[in-house]
Amino acid sequence: MPKTLGVIKPTLVAFEEPIELSRGGRLSRYDLIVETYGNLNADKSNAVLVCHALSGNHHAAGFYDGETKPGWWDHYIGPEKSIDTDLFFVVSLNNLGGCSGSTGPLSTNPETGEPYGPEFPEITVDDWVHTQARLADSLGIVRFAAVVGGSLGGMQAMQWAINYPERIGAAVIIAAAPRLTAQNIAFNEIARQAIVRDPNFHKGHYNKHGTLPISGVGLARMIGHITYLSDISMGEKFGRDLPRADHDSDGANFAIEQYLRYQGQQFSERFDANTYILMTRALDYFDPMDKKKKGLADLLRPANSKFLVLSFSTDWRFSPSRSEEIVEALVQANRQVSYARLESVHGHDAFLIPNPIYERIFESFMNRLHSELGAINSDQ
Amino acid sequence: MPKTLGVIKPTLVAFEEPIELSRGGRLSRYDLIVETYGNLNADKSNAVLVCHALSGNHHAAGFYDGETKPGWWDHYIGPEKSIDTDLFFVVSLNNLGGCSGSTGPLSTNPETGEPYGPEFPEITVDDWVHTQARLADSLGIVRFAAVVGGSLGGMQAMQWAINYPERIGAAVIIAAAPRLTAQNIAFNEIARQAIVRDPNFHKGHYNKHGTLPISGVGLARMIGHITYLSDISMGEKFGRDLPRADHDSDGANFAIEQYLRYQGQQFSERFDANTYILMTRALDYFDPMDKKKKGLADLLRPANSKFLVLSFSTDWRFSPSRSEEIVEALVQANRQVSYARLESVHGHDAFLIPNPIYERIFESFMNRLHSELGAINSDQ
Repeated sequence: MPKTLGVIKPTLVAFEEPIELSRGGRLSRYDLIVETYGNLNADKSNAVLVCHALSGNHHAAGFYDGETKPGWWDHYIGPEKSIDTDLFFVVSLNNLGGCSGSTGPLSTNPETGEPYGPEFPEITVDDWVHTQARLADSLGIVRFAAVVGGSLGGMQAMQWAINYPERIGAAVIIAAAPRLTAQNIAFNEIARQAIVRDPNFHKGHYNKHGTLPISGVGLARMIGHITYLSDISMGEKFGRDLPRADHDSDGANFAIEQYLRYQGQQFSERFDANTYILMTRALDYFDPMDKKKKGLADLLRPANSKFLVLSFSTDWRFSPSRSEEIVEALVQANRQVSYARLESVHGHDAFLIPNPIYERIFESFMNRLHSELGAINSDQ
Repeated sequence: MPKTLGVIKPTLVAFEEPIELSRGGRLSRYDLIVETYGNLNADKSNAVLVCHALSGNHHAAGFYDGETKPGWWDHYIGPEKSIDTDLFFVVSLNNLGGCSGSTGPLSTNPETGEPYGPEFPEITVDDWVHTQARLADSLGIVRFAAVVGGSLGGMQAMQWAINYPERIGAAVIIAAAPRLTAQNIAFNEIARQAIVRDPNFHKGHYNKHGTLPISGVGLARMIGHITYLSDISMGEKFGRDLPRADHDSDGANFAIEQYLRYQGQQFSERFDANTYILMTRALDYFDPMDKKKKGLADLLRPANSKFLVLSFSTDWRFSPSRSEEIVEALVQANRQVSYARLESVHGHDAFLIPNPIYERIFESFMNRLHSELGAINSDQ
C-alpha cells in the first residue's frame, strides 16, 4: 500500500488590503483557498509552493472526507513521493480569479453586492505570483525551497524566479513555454469563442439571467482536451473504435466523439465560464520578455534559484522545443539548470500521469534540495 | 505574364437514374456542377479528374466573369502549369452533397418538394468515386489519365485506384492519409459540435426556421483553419502581434484572434452547415481497409495505376508519416510509386500554395504521363 496524505481540509485565507492588478484592475480585498500538506519546519525553510494550470485548483493531493478521487497531483505529492511531504511543507492554492473557492468572477463584489461575473478584473501570471508571495508572507514563509508547476503552473514558477530571486531556492518548470505562440493563442481563442457564442453566456452575465453556458464551456473543454492528449495516446485509447455500448452514444459515430462529449459535459458542470476566459487570457498575456523588453537569457540572469525543466516527447501544446528555449536561455545566463525530455505517449497531460523516470528525476531533484536545506541549517 | 485559363463557366450535368448510396441512402436523381479546362483529345485519353477537399468545389481554376479571384487550385492548373491544360482536359466537379451547385442538402427533395436539409443521405468517398465515374461515362471518358487531389481529394484519388483499377492511369495523392486517426476525427467532431450547438441550427432545419447557424459554422471553420496552418506559419504571419488597426478588433487581444474570427465569418456566409457536417463525416468514415477487411498493401495490390504521393513537412493534420503509410503499402504491393516529402512552412494548406519544388515534381510527373499517352497513341 502506498502511503497517503489521508483526509485534507482546505483553509480560506483572507487578504483585507486592496491589490492593484497589472492590467489596471483593482480588488479592495480577496480570499485565497489553500491546502497544505506536511509540516513547516522550525526555520520555515522547507516550504514548497505548487502552482496549478488552466483548470486546476488548490486540491492537489490527499482526499476530501468521503471522496475516493484524490487531488490532481496526488501521484507526485505525498509521503515518499516526488514532493515528499515527510520532508517538505507543501502549499497549494486556488489562484485569484479561480472558481474553486478563491475570489473570482463567482464572488460577490463588495462594491455592488452582486457577483463580479464578467466585471472581474483581468489577471496575469504576475498578479498570481504577487498574491502567492502575499500568501507566503501570511504563513511566515520568507523563502520557498521550491516553486513548482506544470503548464501554466510552470510559467508561474518561472515568473517567481524572475520576480523574487531571493525568495525561492528552486523553480521546477514542467511542460511549459516562455510564452505562447500564435497557434497556442488560437486554440485559447477558439475555446473562448465557443463560450461567448453560447447564447446562455449573455456576455458573462449568465447568473443574472438564471442560465449557464454549459454547451459553450463543454465545447471549450473538448477543444482543450484534444490539445492535452497526443495523437498516439488517442489512437491507443480510442483508435477508430465505435462508441461504447454501455454509455449513451447520442449519435456519436466513434468512441472518441462520445468520450470528448462526456469530458466536456463533466467539465461544464463544475467550471465557471468567466474563470475559463480569464485563465486562458492570463495564458495568452504571459510574456515576461515583452514586459521587460529583454531577451529570455537577460531576463533570467538575475534569477538566484536552481532550475529543473522537464518536457514530454509527445506534448504538442508546449513541445519539448519550447522547454528547450527556457533551458538554452538559462545556460546562456549561466544559471544552474537540469533538464530532461521525458518519453511519454500522453502528450501535454503527461505531467499529471504516473511515469517512473519522471518520478525519479523529480524526486531526486527535490530530495537534493532538501539535503542542501539541511546543510544550510546545520551551518547556522 | 503567366498564361491564364481566362473566364470559365460551369455546367450542370443531370443524372436522372437513381443512385443507391453506400451508407444505405438513395437519391432518385441528382445534378453535378462541373468545370472543364483544356480540350479532350480525339481518343479521349488525356482527361484528368481533380477531386476537391472538405470545403472545396468545382471552381478549381480560371476566373468567373467579372471576378478577380481565381479558382482554388489555379496556381497548379492552367496552360504550362503543373496540370498543363495545353496537354490535358481537366474535369473538376462539386461533389455530391456539396453546397456549390451539385445536389446536396440545399437542393429540393423531389419526393417532398422541400430542401433535403439534414435529411440528405450520408455520403462516403466511395459514393463520390462512383458518381465521378458516372460523370466520366457521361463525358465519354473511359479512362482518366490521372485522378488528382489533396487532403480529402487525395483520398478520392486513392479510392479510384482501388475501385477502378482499369479506369485510371495515375493517382496523385497529396497531403492525405489512408484513414483518419482518433485525433483527426476529434477535430472534425468539435467542428460538428460547434455547428449543432448553435441554437440557430435547429437540428439542421435552419431553413425552415428562417435562420442560419453562422456562429457555429464560423467557429467550426476557425477550428479547421488552425489545423490547416502550421505553428511556424502562424508564428511568421501573426506571432504575438496586436490586432490590426484597419480592421474591427471586436475585443480581440491579438492579431491571430482577429484573423480567425474574420476567416470564420467569411466562410459562414458562403458554406452550408449541413454540407459541412456531411463532408466531415465522409472524412471520418473513409476507411477502405476496414470496408474490405484488408491491409493497405493487399488493398492496393490490384491497382493498375502509377502513383505520385506528396506530403509537406509541417502538415500536422495529415503529416508526412501518414503519406508514408500509403507509400510503404504501395512499395509492399510492388506498385509504381514516386514520393516526395516537400519542405514547406505552410502546414496542411501547403498543397494549395505556390512552391517551386512541389510545382516541378508535380509538373514533371504529369508531363511524363502525357508523353506516355502519346506513346500509347502512336503505338495504336
